This record gives sequence, structure tokens and C-alpha cells, in this order.
Amino acid sequence: MNIEMIEAAAGRIAGVVRRTPMLTSPFLDEIAGRRVLMKPECLQHTGSFKFRGGYSAVSALDDETRERGVLAFSSGNHAQGVAWASKLLGAPAVIVMPLDAPAIKLANTKAMGAEVITYDRIGGESREDLGTRLAKERGLTLIRPYDEPHVIAGQGTTGLEIAEQSADLGVTQADVLVCCGGGGLTGGIALALEAEAPDLRVRPVEPVGFDDVARSLISGQIENNNAPSGSICDAILTPAPGKKTFPILRRLCGPGIVVPDEDCLRAMAEAFNRLKVVAEPGGAIALAAALYHGDKIESDAVVVVISGGNVDPAQFRDAISRF
Amino acid sequence: MNIEMIEAAAGRIAGVVRRTPMLTSPFLDEIAGRRVLMKPECLQHTGSFKFRGGYSAVSALDDETRERGVLAFSSGNHAQGVAWASKLLGAPAVIVMPLDAPAIKLANTKAMGAEVITYDRIGGESREDLGTRLAKERGLTLIRPYDEPHVIAGQGTTGLEIAEQSADLGVTQADVLVCCGGGGLTGGIALALEAEAPDLRVRPVEPVGFDDVARSLISGQIENNNAPSGSICDAILTPAPGKKTFPILRRLCGPGIVVPDEDCLRAMAEAFNRLKVVAEPGGAIALAAALYHGDKIESDAVVVVISGGNVDPAQFRDAISRF
Repeated sequence: MNIEMIEAAAGRIAGVVRRTPMLTSPFLDEIAGRRVLMKPECLQHTGSFKFRGGYSAVSALDDETRERGVLAFSSGNHAQGVAWASKLLGAPAVIVMPLDAPAIKLANTKAMGAEVITYDRIGGESREDLGTRLAKERGLTLIRPYDEPHVIAGQGTTGLEIAEQSADLGVTQADVLVCCGGGGLTGGIALALEAEAPDLRVRPVEPVGFDDVARSLISGQIENNNAPSGSICDAILTPAPGKKTFPILRRLCGPGIVVPDEDCLRAMAEAFNRLKVVAEPGGAIALAAALYHGDKIESDAVVVVISGGNVDPAQFRDAISRF
Repeated sequence: MNIEMIEAAAGRIAGVVRRTPMLTSPFLDEIAGRRVLMKPECLQHTGSFKFRGGYSAVSALDDETRERGVLAFSSGNHAQGVAWASKLLGAPAVIVMPLDAPAIKLANTKAMGAEVITYDRIGGESREDLGTRLAKERGLTLIRPYDEPHVIAGQGTTGLEIAEQSADLGVTQADVLVCCGGGGLTGGIALALEAEAPDLRVRPVEPVGFDDVARSLISGQIENNNAPSGSICDAILTPAPGKKTFPILRRLCGPGIVVPDEDCLRAMAEAFNRLKVVAEPGGAIALAAALYHGDKIESDAVVVVISGGNVDPAQFRDAISRF
């Protein structure tokens, strides 16, 4: 993995992937006690940054491979990203999703023309095993959600935009807070910033109980989470950092920040009130770190990625009625 | 009023006003039965396009006038736009707002450092009279919400961006649906498009019972609304098109479209689900016209301005729980 792969991905996705704006709010600066720049990838096609990686990966396939089709396993955002990229690029797509994925993610993935196969998150075959087996049986190319170079490169294009847009706003030294599941977005952004804005340092943010990356960065080796589910941040509940992403994280990313679920709901309400964007719980976790865990941050400014907005209305109503 | 004034405004606001993206959704295209491009000015500073006109007007004042201060009357979005522009430009600001304005608009305007004076929308002195009297008594410059050339020019910068961004997406012939109160945004966009994208035709959109512009365009003279309030679209309930805006609307804008309040709530829910942006009722009315009143539209594509997102949480919850 290197910056050239990210630049190549940027070339493939140009004109298709949306360049999301960089948002600011004096009200949020005040809560955070420092300047906060926010990159709302919830405004990306399919409602999350995952479309970048999905399009990057499917567009990198040769024609014959692409026409045979692709398979992805995902809690929902990678599913939609790959499904929509496949639709645009004419590739049949099979998506393996957990039964308890948010209804909107299941429905959208189907509506984008993908064949959806559900599995039970607890017990039974792991999604990796199920996905790998199905891909082999059907002759499909597996597009892994994070441990796949073209996916990491696609997510890294977010970092190229962050470097440019932060500089436009006068910010060249900052902590960049990124929600972290398997590390595809975090690692991709870190690689892009290493090349384009070396004084922007990436800090992974995870939910309490799913701090595998924070612990792995401390121990220097891949650590696992104890449970497969149990946080509202469904988008970022991966068992452990990836084999391809972890070396990037270890080399480039600062200490992790761990945030309770409740703070994610509170940050969703602030994003609603102050930014007018819809964030899902895992998508708001980096904003929550900026707003409510500033004691873990030393830089004068932070850049926050709001990674997705695919939230069921009932949960969103809960967030904005309580905070 | 002419395109040179809009270009001059674009120069004054450059680097301060946010260039909002142009959003699309295959799901919304399907509902509308045609391609829909959406310009989310709810993502603008202060949560609505009004910051463009406010900054344009306050930045056009000479230093001495600006230092004496400005006064604005507004249901809330112009209030916030002028208040924040004044704060950035160092001008004291007095804002006259109706007692029944949404709580978030009142609170934000105060938080931006403005002095807020409330008045009763029903009975008593009109807001124009009150505003004019107070401005005179205190030596402040009145920044009218729409019948003011520098304000119209500022709102028109939205049109410059629409022309560019629509062309980037391959749309050069379309109806441009714009929510219409006094006509500042509608007129400004129409002037910008006349010069930059003459096959994009502006269609004003208004709530049922407040269709003064639609009726004025039919009769060819300024018509009034019967009631001062009574629609949830608080941002666009003005008594009549302005004396400066109406000649522009009459010369450049196609027939008006009139939309029931209920459809605005429904469009807010779609903007939440599909675009991940927060729209207020008046801000969603043009989207409602595109989605549910397509029989009034002939073009293959429409451009929709989502003009603001300053909505109280209870009303937003209502919209996303019902639709």
C-alpha cells in the first residue's frame, strides 16, 4: 500500500464519487474548546464513505472478472457501497449481511439491485468463511470490507480531500479523528496524509467494549474484541484490525480514543442541530470524541470524519429527543 | 439589479460563504420520475442561504456605516445570516424577530452576539414599520430581508454555483425549483441563471394559502396573502413579493407551484433518509414540488434548492416518524 495506489484510486473514482464539503460550526468549536473541521461522508453516495472503496475496488477489476460478478460481506455500509458501485459498473453483486443489520441498510442494498443473503451474527459460520465459500462456489470476486488494497486506497481518497480542504481553512497541524472498525478508512486516510499533510495525525476512535484497535496499538500486535455485537455503532463492530491495515495503523496512527455509545447519540443530536447532517451512531463517534473527550487531544484543531448516515428513524428520533 | 452585482457579491463572500455541494439520489429520481439535482443550502453557515445575502450586504457597507451597526427583521434565517455576518465583520447587530419564531432560530441569533427584539406577528406595528423606526432611532442601517439589492445579489451567488454544478453533472436544461417568500433568493438565482445558464428556468414554490407570488405572476401585479401566518413553512411567509424582486420574477420566472404543508414534512423525511441532510419545512418545499407535484413540471431534469435546515427537533421527529 502506498500513496500511488490512492492517487490511482482517485483517478478511477473522479467524477463519480462526490467530493464532500468540509463543515464548521462556531457552536461546536465552543463545546470542543478548539477548532473542529468536519468531513461529512454521510453525504457521500449510498450515505457513507464506503462507496469510495467499493467503486475503487470494482473499477479496478478487469472486464471479464467484473462481468462474472462480485461478493461482499458487510453490516450494511460496505454492502451499499459495493452494491451501488457494481450497479454503475455493470457487475452482478451478491451481498452477505447480518440478520440484525439496520432495516434501511438491508432495504437499500436490495433496492440497488444486489442479491442479499443474510446470516446470524451469533454462532454459525463466520461471515468471512461464508463469504469466501460463496464467492468460490459462484465464481465471484470477493471485495473485502477493509483488508483489500483497492478498498483501502479508495477510502484513502477521503484523506486527499482532507489535506486540501484543511489547508484551505488554514489548518495544517491537527489530530484527525476517524472512526475505526477494521481500519480501511483509518489506514487509507493515514497513508494519504503521510504524503500530503504530514502534520495531520490520525487518531482511531472506537466504541467502549470494541477497542481492539486502541489495545492493538498499545500492545503492538493484533488484539481481538470479546463480543461480536453489543454497541449501537453497528458500522464499526469488527472483530480485530486487519492484517493489511494494522501495519499501517501501527506505523502512522496516534493513540486510540474510546467513546461510550451515549456520547455518539449526543453527537448525532449536535450534528443535527449545528451541521444539518444526519449521522449514524458509528458515523458520529469521531465527533463525539472531539466534543466530549477533548482531554485526550492536544492539538489546537481537530479534523473529524463523519463517516456515515444510514440510521433507522427511530434511533435518530431517540437521539434528537434526548439531547 | 444585474449580473455584475452578483459577481461583485461573489467576490466579497469568496472564502467565507461555503460552496455547498450538489446532491443526487437514485431513490429520489425514481419518486420524481426525472433526474433531480439538489443544492443543500441547509449546509450553509447559519443553516440557510440567508448568510449569503447577509454577508453580501454587511460587507458592502463602508467602514463608518458598518461600525455604527445594522438592523434586520426576520422570522429567523435572515436574522441568523445577518447576525453571523455582522459578528464576522465587526458590526453591532439588532435583530427584530416574531415571538413565535422557532426556538432554535431565536436562541442561535442571540448566541451569535446579536441583540434580539421580539414582536407579535398578529396586530400591532408591522415588522417593517418597527424595523424602520428602530433603525432610525438608533442610527443603524436596515438590512431588508429581500428588497435590498446587495441581499438579492448575495442570494444570487447560489445561482452561479447551480449553473456550474449542474453543467458538471450534464444538466443544462431544467426547471429550477426555488422556495419563495419575498423573492430575494428566487430573483437572485433567476438573474444569475439568465446570464450563466439561460436554459435553467426558475419556478417559485410556495405553501398553500401563501401563494402570493404564484398569483402575482398570473395577474402581472403584486398580490398579497390574506393571513400573516398559518403554515409550518415559517421561513417563507411574507405578505407579498417585494417591489424590487417582483419585476425580476415577472421577467424571468415560470409559473409558480403551490404545495400543501403535509408534502413538506414528507419531503423532509426523504431528505433525511436519502440525502442525510436536515431540512426545515420551508426549506423542503421545493423538493416536495419535485417529488409530489411532477405533473406541474415538463423538463427532463429539475434542480431543487433546499434552502434551510433550522427546524425544531420536535417537528423534525414528527416528520420522520410519520413518513
